[in-house]
Amino acid sequence: KQTYHIAVIPGDGIGKEIVPEAQAVLEKVTEGRANFEYVDFDLGAERYLRDGAILPDEELERLKQQDAILLGAIGDPRIKAGILERGLLLKMRFELDQYVNLRPSKLYKGVVSPLADPGDIDFVVVREGTEGLYAGAGGSVRRGTPQEVATEVSINTAFGAERVVRYAYKLAMKRRRKLTLVHKKNVLTNAGDMWQRLVDQVGEEYPEVEREYLHVDASTIFLVTEPSRFDVIVTDNLFGDILTDEAGAVVGGVGYSASGCINASNTYPSMFEPIHGSAPDIAGKGIANPTAAILSAAMLLDHLGFDQEADRINKAVEDDIAELGATSRSTSRIGKDILGRL
Amino acid sequence: KQTYHIAVIPGDGIGKEIVPEAQAVLEKVTEGRANFEYVDFDLGAERYLRDGAILPDEELERLKQQDAILLGAIGDPRIKAGILERGLLLKMRFELDQYVNLRPSKLYKGVVSPLADPGDIDFVVVREGTEGLYAGAGGSVRRGTPQEVATEVSINTAFGAERVVRYAYKLAMKRRRKLTLVHKKNVLTNAGDMWQRLVDQVGEEYPEVEREYLHVDASTIFLVTEPSRFDVIVTDNLFGDILTDEAGAVVGGVGYSASGCINASNTYPSMFEPIHGSAPDIAGKGIANPTAAILSAAMLLDHLGFDQEADRINKAVEDDIAELGATSRSTSRIGKDILGRL
Ligand SMILES: CC(C)[C@H](C(=O)O)[C@@H](O)C(=O)O
Ligand SMILES: CC(C)[C@H](C(=O)O)[C@@H](O)C(=O)O
Repeated sequence: KQTYHIAVIPGDGIGKEIVPEAQAVLEKVTEGRANFEYVDFDLGAERYLRDGAILPDEELERLKQQDAILLGAIGDPRIKAGILERGLLLKMRFELDQYVNLRPSKLYKGVVSPLADPGDIDFVVVREGTEGLYAGAGGSVRRGTPQEVATEVSINTAFGAERVVRYAYKLAMKRRRKLTLVHKKNVLTNAGDMWQRLVDQVGEEYPEVEREYLHVDASTIFLVTEPSRFDVIVTDNLFGDILTDEAGAVVGGVGYSASGCINASNTYPSMFEPIHGSAPDIAGKGIANPTAAILSAAMLLDHLGFDQEADRINKAVEDDIAELGATSRSTSRIGKDILGRL
Repeated sequence: KQTYHIAVIPGDGIGKEIVPEAQAVLEKVTEGRANFEYVDFDLGAERYLRDGAILPDEELERLKQQDAILLGAIGDPRIKAGILERGLLLKMRFELDQYVNLRPSKLYKGVVSPLADPGDIDFVVVREGTEGLYAGAGGSVRRGTPQEVATEVSINTAFGAERVVRYAYKLAMKRRRKLTLVHKKNVLTNAGDMWQRLVDQVGEEYPEVEREYLHVDASTIFLVTEPSRFDVIVTDNLFGDILTDEAGAVVGGVGYSASGCINASNTYPSMFEPIHGSAPDIAGKGIANPTAAILSAAMLLDHLGFDQEADRINKAVEDDIAELGATSRSTSRIGKDILGRL
């Protein structure tokens, strides 16, 4: 039996409550199939407040030795916005070259969408994960004066965009064969034009895949009026961030939305996390929904090649939601209910 | 009686069909109250395809002589994305220093929202109109090669942000006294931090206004789950573009969403336009809804100080939608129906 080392980073807020449920599910489905060893990483707000460390180099190196990372959530209202996000979460995505940020949106049976007539929603956003406006380029001059100027630079490379575009086409081939590029090429003409050219070029190799282009503003409309039109969306880092939160709302809440920050070249471990945040308002109450974390664990297994085990989790979650989705349950109750179906 | 010179730019696609309806409404309500003279500007795709002109300097100078601008829509699929948008639409917004892009969202009685339980939706987005990622800064190297790098630079100034923040607070004072800053300060730390500081600083002068901050991704969720929470949203150029399209969808379609590109210092004329685009798919069929253009005409009147006339239009539109909003009518039918109520 092979051994897998899984880094576990509960992180902040409800992250601490939902990750144990996801880990329990992982343990259960891999029992007897493989040796999963869990390595806890004490990273996040508590650690930062305690000793000032965000992501020390040695810990980053240790992370690189693992086979995959299970993450809860990062972010704490006591700490200035950006410090943990940029210093920990984005640093991991960038340093581990997790260029495909994979975010499925699915309206499960039993979940109430805020839309009156949601239709059949089942699409995946392939969000670029290592460049764009997230590069951290930019700065300020004359900070705090009336003459202050602050810039943010979106850095986009053909290398970086092409690899996610390729990934998106491959994914579309396994699905309903439709690819939507979302950008704002009528305003962001440099980056938008490059993305469009790459989608067209790589598209030549995938003649079976229907492709369309939508401006990001128009796509926020379609997510509300006709979400079933989407199969695979490919987009940049910021637009992907925005669209997947809206998509999460449309499928009944980000509590059901898992994601994978995938290094598809496997040079470093991939990371799996719910798309929701640390939700400080409900943290510590034991009422956060662990479903997105559990679905993220399924994505982790799928990534490591355990697709049957992943399917078992997905099936258990689907059944759980279909039967009990509308009832109000505690974090551990939902965890146990899903565990009981495995 | 004073004379007002109104530049009319029908522009492209359905712009040509809806602007005459809005102009007819303008003519009707100002009859006997003031001399409105309309100056047609032949700008847009047809002009560009005919003689290559986008916005010649002399025409820009003539535009500056007008009291206000009524615009239809800009954009044509025959022309590469960005040419008309950047060369004409954004050029006017920037050259005429229309720094407040004012975009009300209201769910009218009689309009069906795609949300199952929309609640009472009535908010205004104050979108910055002259900087951010729309500055047109950025470029490419090694275009068309695997080594291509494309950048887009968001330029944000305290001067530019503060004036819209001030405008937003003043507006909030006339409304429900709640201001939401939308940004992504946990990632775009330079610009986000500046916006937050300005909102806090100016907020000291408006202690009656409750203020909150939301990340742009989270705000796309609330627009779907709880749009009634918003009163005044202040945000940058790109986030404002995205949010107002989503908001338009939530209030039953961008066909009801007007906007003003306002030079609040009145150094140059302001421009009023529906937030929807040229809709090439339905252009020429006479089925486009002129309501957003008519509501934009009301905003134009309000800006010129004709608030009673603006109110008359708003009332006529409200009544029209309440009674006939659900029926399918042609462009000219809707125009005539609204005209008939004035
Ligand atoms: C916390 C934040 C930096 C992060 C992002 O913007 O990527 C989050 O919103 C997400 O979508 O995972
Ligand atoms: C056409 C386009 C350049 C424009 C914008 O992005 O501002 C439009 O989407 C709008 O919202 O007015």
